[in-house]
Amino acid sequence: MNNPIDSRTKGLPHSTADFSLAEIGARRWNVLKEDLPLPVALLRQSALERNRRWMRDFLDRTGAKHAPHGKTHMSPELFGLQMSDGAWGITLATVQQVRVARQAGIDRILLANEIVSARDIAYILDELRGHSSFEFYCLADSLEGVGRLAAAAASAPAGRPLRILIELGYRGGRTGCRSIESALGVARAVKAAEPHLLLCGVEGFEGLYQYLPVSEGVPQVQRLLMEIAGLAQRIDEAGLFGVDEIVLSAGGSAFYDLVAEAFGRTRLSRKVSIVLRNGCYLTHDVGTCEHFFAALLERSSHARGTGVRLENALEVWGYVLSVPERGRAILGAGRRDFGHDLGNPKPLKQFRPGQTQMPSEASGHEIVAINDQHAHMTFPANADVQVGDMIALGISHPCTTFDKWRLLHVVDDSYTVVHAVRTCF
Amino acid sequence: MNNPIDSRTKGLPHSTADFSLAEIGARRWNVLKEDLPLPVALLRQSALERNRRWMRDFLDRTGAKHAPHGKTHMSPELFGLQMSDGAWGITLATVQQVRVARQAGIDRILLANEIVSARDIAYILDELRGHSSFEFYCLADSLEGVGRLAAAAASAPAGRPLRILIELGYRGGRTGCRSIESALGVARAVKAAEPHLLLCGVEGFEGLYQYLPVSEGVPQVQRLLMEIAGLAQRIDEAGLFGVDEIVLSAGGSAFYDLVAEAFGRTRLSRKVSIVLRNGCYLTHDVGTCEHFFAALLERSSHARGTGVRLENALEVWGYVLSVPERGRAILGAGRRDFGHDLGNPKPLKQFRPGQTQMPSEASGHEIVAINDQHAHMTFPANADVQVGDMIALGISHPCTTFDKWRLLHVVDDSYTVVHAVRTCF
Repeated sequence: MNNPIDSRTKGLPHSTADFSLAEIGARRWNVLKEDLPLPVALLRQSALERNRRWMRDFLDRTGAKHAPHGKTHMSPELFGLQMSDGAWGITLATVQQVRVARQAGIDRILLANEIVSARDIAYILDELRGHSSFEFYCLADSLEGVGRLAAAAASAPAGRPLRILIELGYRGGRTGCRSIESALGVARAVKAAEPHLLLCGVEGFEGLYQYLPVSEGVPQVQRLLMEIAGLAQRIDEAGLFGVDEIVLSAGGSAFYDLVAEAFGRTRLSRKVSIVLRNGCYLTHDVGTCEHFFAALLERSSHARGTGVRLENALEVWGYVLSVPERGRAILGAGRRDFGHDLGNPKPLKQFRPGQTQMPSEASGHEIVAINDQHAHMTFPANADVQVGDMIALGISHPCTTFDKWRLLHVVDDSYTVVHAVRTCF
Repeated sequence: MNNPIDSRTKGLPHSTADFSLAEIGARRWNVLKEDLPLPVALLRQSALERNRRWMRDFLDRTGAKHAPHGKTHMSPELFGLQMSDGAWGITLATVQQVRVARQAGIDRILLANEIVSARDIAYILDELRGHSSFEFYCLADSLEGVGRLAAAAASAPAGRPLRILIELGYRGGRTGCRSIESALGVARAVKAAEPHLLLCGVEGFEGLYQYLPVSEGVPQVQRLLMEIAGLAQRIDEAGLFGVDEIVLSAGGSAFYDLVAEAFGRTRLSRKVSIVLRNGCYLTHDVGTCEHFFAALLERSSHARGTGVRLENALEVWGYVLSVPERGRAILGAGRRDFGHDLGNPKPLKQFRPGQTQMPSEASGHEIVAINDQHAHMTFPANADVQVGDMIALGISHPCTTFDKWRLLHVVDDSYTVVHAVRTCF
């Protein structure tokens, strides 16, 4: 965790020797002075802070807890930021990700996935055994899966249980039981595996509905959330929960307002903890997340009541390498530098080093094609784009941009690097 | 370069402490014994070696030189392998990549790109000044670009020139001059900047034509290659080349046979060095590269004459986490683990730990959807797929799979790890 930053890391000046992360702010590198080679990935600090405030406000208003999905950024420093904002825990997708979070000191982890490998389970049990502060939740959606967890925990007891959330899915979806009856069967199997397993709640993932038109997606999400709540009531009535406070969890980055709302109405025999898992709020974007957020604001008075709005914090900068045709420029940044799974990036700003003080808005510029290391940008006839100009790209889908970088610079509003965060993908 | 491997690295056992790369083979980790957590990325050593032999044979038969594109894998260890196979140099796309290769001891680098930033150019000049063995080529496609290179080199002379290849492009393509006349203008500007710049050859990138149907792509590629050769003749006649051996370079992973053939016919006043840049041959794939290779074999008698064939060396393994519906399994590997820009991965093998000795062929299995951390796999009614099975995925486009991993294991035919390679993206 305290490994020095490798001087070869993308985004660092060429002359850097290996150094520790804490030193970076003292160097006063400025993007507009070309202190950093491009392409480079930047997190705008002021936007990050406003986004953190938004999420805290939203959670205060809804009473929901937050276990932001750490897979978004996989950054120990950003885990720390999120925990300091009062996060209940960190959500993760794989046991390697758990390992990263454990080394970053995260004590409550929700693995929003099934675990099937004996060595994966053994690692978790070892962590539980060795660290009394560690609390671990994972999902179960099959008798086979519960059998694996129970057998591993029984053969090498950790002294404390693996906390289980039953996962409810839907036909054509991802993981998760396909019926209430099968889910009840899995819940009974978990109950039967006490004290090694402990049934703590019910979970689902509504996020795949984000690919439907909003008007179709929302009713599907609401139906799934109702089914999750209904399943929790059945499990509650059957006396299968092993805890005083029952976890109901769902929530990708598109519909978390609906999760807070639906689960907020759910009444069980014990207290309900609503755990939202949206992770993209921290940086937001100028693509899908922006689109989702507009719909969320329309739906949710809690969201509208907050004093700030989510805004884009993540930019990838690249040089104009060539303007080979009228209205067409080639940038030195490509799919190695930004995600493209939910659309091409958007040119946000243009800057001509040495000529102006601050970037101007890129208006009418568009990324029309991308390659591994290049982006093809068109621009209007009245725009002045020259070789050597710097272009700031906004992206769609933060997750797949974070994983292109081992280090992202945190910059102030004048684009001076004040800090940096590492990623551990 | 000798930094220890971070124990958090994806693909390493959970209990590993930081360690040096050289130790990995001694641990005798075996994938089929579940010594490694999944997802994991594997390079099959026997396939790598056959692919290396294929490329050596092909180069021997055509007389072309090879500067494999290092952006494919960005692995110091694989750079070393390629140089030991006799590569003329390594091709790269950005100056950060050059930095990685320089630290790996690569002395001849072809930056198949324009450089526009003063600090990028200064770094290259510093390297030239400090290391007499270093030889550096980059591209020029504009007077503005040449001006930047010349000004930087004149103000801080390196004692040796920046070696320049004129880049010829085409309308709707990427970088590169759009006409012979403009390219001649750029060539004259390079000549005028002697001794700081040295005009060494002509270059182009035909690879974007790979997205056309083969029957349309091939004539376009041949036309571009003829134009590059024609430009070289014009520059030669004008006496602008500053070297005794003129470099003609092109070649992505689809059409390098055509490059060798077209440039092999080119006659100039001095000796011609044909430099191919294809990088994906090393691992090959089961998608686009396989498709390109079939067409290449049909076209090229040199290719057919070699004793071996390229074969897929790169596999990403994931567990079956859930079989929630008949004929549908969810795998714990997703777009964080493999590229998807040129198609979804293909299930190649299935293995049930503890039940069988070796993986069986996955027949009829198909990846129908992917998410960040999951793949949705369908399989035939007669296939037996269970929770906990391991699935080996073949991929399409090695570049965008390499960049999902900081470490890839090299395995023997029994899936025992014999070595590993790091990446520096």
